[in-house]
Amino acid sequence: MKISKKKMVLLLLGVIPAIAMSVVPAFAQGAVTEVPVASDTSIFVFNTLLFLISGMVVMFMAAGFSMLEVGLVRSKNAATICLKNIALYSIAGIMVYLFGYNLVYTVPPGGVIAPLDMFWGADDSAPFEIGYSSHSDWFFQMVFVATAASIVSGTLAERIKLWPFMIFVAILTGFIYPIQASWEWGAGWLDALGFSDFAGSTLVHSTGGWAALAGAIVLGPRVGKYVNGRVAPIPGSSLPMATLGTFILWLGWFGFNGGSQLALGTIEDSISVARIFVNTNMAACAGVVAAMALTQVLYKKVDLTIVLNGAIGGLVSITAEPLTPVIGQALFIGAVGGAIVTLAVPVLDRFKIDDVVGAIPAHLLCGIWGTLIVPLTNPDAKIFVQAIGVLAIGIFVFVMSLLCWLALKYTVGIRASEEDERLGLDKVELGLEAYPEFAKS
Amino acid sequence: MKISKKKMVLLLLGVIPAIAMSVVPAFAQGAVTEVPVASDTSIFVFNTLLFLISGMVVMFMAAGFSMLEVGLVRSKNAATICLKNIALYSIAGIMVYLFGYNLVYTVPPGGVIAPLDMFWGADDSAPFEIGYSSHSDWFFQMVFVATAASIVSGTLAERIKLWPFMIFVAILTGFIYPIQASWEWGAGWLDALGFSDFAGSTLVHSTGGWAALAGAIVLGPRVGKYVNGRVAPIPGSSLPMATLGTFILWLGWFGFNGGSQLALGTIEDSISVARIFVNTNMAACAGVVAAMALTQVLYKKVDLTIVLNGAIGGLVSITAEPLTPVIGQALFIGAVGGAIVTLAVPVLDRFKIDDVVGAIPAHLLCGIWGTLIVPLTNPDAKIFVQAIGVLAIGIFVFVMSLLCWLALKYTVGIRASEEDERLGLDKVELGLEAYPEFAKS
Amino acid sequence: MKISKKKMVLLLLGVIPAIAMSVVPAFAQGAVTEVPVASDTSIFVFNTLLFLISGMVVMFMAAGFSMLEVGLVRSKNAATICLKNIALYSIAGIMVYLFGYNLVYTVPPGGVIAPLDMFWGADDSAPFEIGYSSHSDWFFQMVFVATAASIVSGTLAERIKLWPFMIFVAILTGFIYPIQASWEWGAGWLDALGFSDFAGSTLVHSTGGWAALAGAIVLGPRVGKYVNGRVAPIPGSSLPMATLGTFILWLGWFGFNGGSQLALGTIEDSISVARIFVNTNMAACAGVVAAMALTQVLYKKVDLTIVLNGAIGGLVSITAEPLTPVIGQALFIGAVGGAIVTLAVPVLDRFKIDDVVGAIPAHLLCGIWGTLIVPLTNPDAKIFVQAIGVLAIGIFVFVMSLLCWLALKYTVGIRASEEDERLGLDKVELGLEAYPEFAKS
Repeated sequence: MKISKKKMVLLLLGVIPAIAMSVVPAFAQGAVTEVPVASDTSIFVFNTLLFLISGMVVMFMAAGFSMLEVGLVRSKNAATICLKNIALYSIAGIMVYLFGYNLVYTVPPGGVIAPLDMFWGADDSAPFEIGYSSHSDWFFQMVFVATAASIVSGTLAERIKLWPFMIFVAILTGFIYPIQASWEWGAGWLDALGFSDFAGSTLVHSTGGWAALAGAIVLGPRVGKYVNGRVAPIPGSSLPMATLGTFILWLGWFGFNGGSQLALGTIEDSISVARIFVNTNMAACAGVVAAMALTQVLYKKVDLTIVLNGAIGGLVSITAEPLTPVIGQALFIGAVGGAIVTLAVPVLDRFKIDDVVGAIPAHLLCGIWGTLIVPLTNPDAKIFVQAIGVLAIGIFVFVMSLLCWLALKYTVGIRASEEDERLGLDKVELGLEAYPEFAKS
Repeated sequence: MKISKKKMVLLLLGVIPAIAMSVVPAFAQGAVTEVPVASDTSIFVFNTLLFLISGMVVMFMAAGFSMLEVGLVRSKNAATICLKNIALYSIAGIMVYLFGYNLVYTVPPGGVIAPLDMFWGADDSAPFEIGYSSHSDWFFQMVFVATAASIVSGTLAERIKLWPFMIFVAILTGFIYPIQASWEWGAGWLDALGFSDFAGSTLVHSTGGWAALAGAIVLGPRVGKYVNGRVAPIPGSSLPMATLGTFILWLGWFGFNGGSQLALGTIEDSISVARIFVNTNMAACAGVVAAMALTQVLYKKVDLTIVLNGAIGGLVSITAEPLTPVIGQALFIGAVGGAIVTLAVPVLDRFKIDDVVGAIPAHLLCGIWGTLIVPLTNPDAKIFVQAIGVLAIGIFVFVMSLLCWLALKYTVGIRASEEDERLGLDKVELGLEAYPEFAKS
Repeated sequence: MKISKKKMVLLLLGVIPAIAMSVVPAFAQGAVTEVPVASDTSIFVFNTLLFLISGMVVMFMAAGFSMLEVGLVRSKNAATICLKNIALYSIAGIMVYLFGYNLVYTVPPGGVIAPLDMFWGADDSAPFEIGYSSHSDWFFQMVFVATAASIVSGTLAERIKLWPFMIFVAILTGFIYPIQASWEWGAGWLDALGFSDFAGSTLVHSTGGWAALAGAIVLGPRVGKYVNGRVAPIPGSSLPMATLGTFILWLGWFGFNGGSQLALGTIEDSISVARIFVNTNMAACAGVVAAMALTQVLYKKVDLTIVLNGAIGGLVSITAEPLTPVIGQALFIGAVGGAIVTLAVPVLDRFKIDDVVGAIPAHLLCGIWGTLIVPLTNPDAKIFVQAIGVLAIGIFVFVMSLLCWLALKYTVGIRASEEDERLGLDKVELGLEAYPEFAKS
């Protein structure tokens, strides 16, 4: 018997808040009983509003990634990285519409893959049963997908060709991301197993990181990065831009994690969102301070680029479970994230994996760390199941991405020629300069 | 086998008509009755909150315009364009207070002009009957007026004198904009006729565009732009800044269109705001992809500046009706907006209309397109009435602006001297440099 | 007939006193009784949401301060100022967690200092009695503390050593700020006296300003700033960045002042928040126009840097009482703030106090002005009590800061060597360049 799409959605959408509620620990549930609840309408509007505000600032994370990346590439590739970022967000939106949303949410309970069915938008025909506007959820999901794609552009900057990159983004956002996301957020097999990834340390950030890693391996390092066994630093063109981008990402993360509570209209939900805000913020603070202290100790100088990535590392680390930690635990989780970012950069360089903006340590490694540490604060999570989720998603995304990159490499080609790379992609791909009056020529 | 770049583009281009075909006009509206409503107080607070959050991000669009424009002018005019933008927002605020708000909202039903009555602020003395805080509405209206003025500054950049520009801004925001806005949003004659312009494709964006066009004609092109019948490209000084500005505008547009629902406190209203968010976002995505594909086909290279304007073109296009389209229709409307922006730039150049940032295609032309296409998705709108509105507002704003610019030209003068223009307005008007350490001198 | 530039300015200037005259103190408050109230749950969620949204944009003010400051320092110190800003925010968060929140809120009623008790997070175990999530309040308080610290970094830029500055930030955010804040917001002795400082003109902005002033005196001016009795202008490296920063601060101020209403869930509260938004916005507008007109008259050229500080000055001025003024009064208060900023810069220079970004006029002096003018619009405030608050907090913060700076100076040292200062802190402290491809070396 084929369950109608609408019914399945209602069922699934009912399951998600139930899951979210089930991770609320016993911290503050006693005294909130016997309080007059909000009307169903108010709850509906609050929940919808949470998605809209959160989605809005997560959308703005696309600007954050753009500024971070444009600050960390050389000026000759600055316009291209801007273009890639606004284009990948746009392509992600269209692919979520065409395939992605359907693939995430119509997977059978406990299943692995949904039937492929194009053009499935949001359905608000029976809103009351769902408890929020489906369009608001659609929007929130869409911006999440774009975030995963944003991670890839930074790692592969300065040498990948424009259109092949866009084709990969379409595949990632239309198929790879949605399939693995359905395993957890579409009530698929990982969810059935009890895997816990609140806002997507693994599902979003590691996914982006694995795709980036596969790309970096296939693509190879930039010309001049690894010469005669030595690592040549290639400084970014504007650290203030990179700083701005990091602050924008930090801002967007309140929506990223806070919105993942998926509900706001009750006292419990609103307290949860507030806890998530505090923990998200404090994990980032700890990531900054850890990276600052560690770079001072290791290199005798504080490295701003690593500190910025420390903030992101802290944020990614808390994303798998921003609700259950107390502040001290959030600081610990974030500080380890900042340390991972600091220590992983030389390791990547040893393998000659050229990650222009440091996205692999910040998103992939901290995503793994954040997912594995969930059981520390959330008794419902099991370390074994967490490891299964990390591995399963890691293998799936990495292998699929590798196949895509290889297919692209041996058909259309993905790498700019050495001469084009020396000239800079801006002149070659766009025929212009990002800063025509400033940069040394 | 290597697939040619053109084929890749055509493939992506093919998606757009496919999307346009997928328009499913069945817009489910039935089942939202008989749900417990929120208390009147909650509805009041929700509505007020919608205005405040929306107004806040629309205010931030002033930063978006500033960054877009500062990125697209030469560095010798960068500080001046920043000053113009922060000043025009401020003058708009004061003029809305002195004259504008009164002129929009006290026009007699079906009327053309309100009695002139200075110093009319918001009145919250009897809030309950209105259903939201009048101050929140006042704030939302004020930031809309500033948006219209922001459009003008970009077109006229790099050659207009500072203070005469400010005088025009005062007239535009205090009188021209409010009078035409009253025709529709003040329950004036266009509203009585059935004109439909949800968030202001015509009332805000075309209005700004007409004022800019009149100014560009009176002011003339920049020195060196059109020489011996050829168009000399004058590249902007910082495309990353322009990209940032575009992202900020995109962010602000959620408030611009979403807030124009004017209510949030019911299930229907919150669903509507969510639909508006989705459609606004998707129209921008389509504008980006359309501009990207078209510039690749036409010029063999993707043009980042046009892609950024493609996003804005998509956003302006959906602004006249962001609620009724399904996603496929929003993509179609936005994609045409992106195409308009791409194709209109050479046309303007043929007429030697020097629009520094491309605001006339993005705001004026896409504003017209968005307004005329409303009947496709909204059966209450009539194409004939839409055309009347476009024409009436176009003629009024263009003629009034032209008269103002001519009056300014023949009294205080509006154009910097050729020598001053060569030196750059920053040195001449402000006595400083925007980037004293960077720019070539 | 050509109207002179000066006459145009005077015309615009004339508007400001006219506006100040238009103060209509009749603040209608009657008809809001007997309206069905929201449920207690809805009120709780609204109040919590106000803190979260407000806190989110106030957090983003850290980006605003960063961009303002990075635009106003020379490029050789740009990366260091970015690092200081992201680090001070992070350290502030940790110190608020360790000491600050406890010190603010556990002071005995009417008291002066709280018992020192580490590790006091937020407590949501009995939320209903409080009326909002304690975590949301915790977050809002934390970002306020960071704001005060952000003020200091700008004044002391380009010459202070990194780690001693961080130590001062820890002391300021962990002890100095919380103790004085507890006097008012912790129901301490100033609150008992009837002191009125709605959102912190004195408690946040003057506090930051006093700490900055003490630091500037102990630290001394930059090399080359005051030579042979003359003031050498040292232009900032990127006025567009500074403009962006100002807009971000303006955006954040809606949360800063609006959130300080501390409640949203009733009609009265939501109207109050809306009034605060309008007044905050209009005070900034007036600050911009006043600074613009004054610099044109005084210096014959508009000074963008002063205009940006005029916006901030207007915002700081309205922060002590953004609720009770009508719009005309808000314009007056903000315009005086803009004038103070314009006129104070040369005065500071006379005393050889080198305030790199102009934070002392904007935050300290306008903070005093805003606090003293509260009685104009709020009949509950007494000018004498306001003066006591300004003085008490001023003396406490200034003396404590002075002692800290002196202790740091004579132990670890706070000043970079003259050679390091000439090289730039980026090379010395971070071993890198903010703009390696752009800046003149």
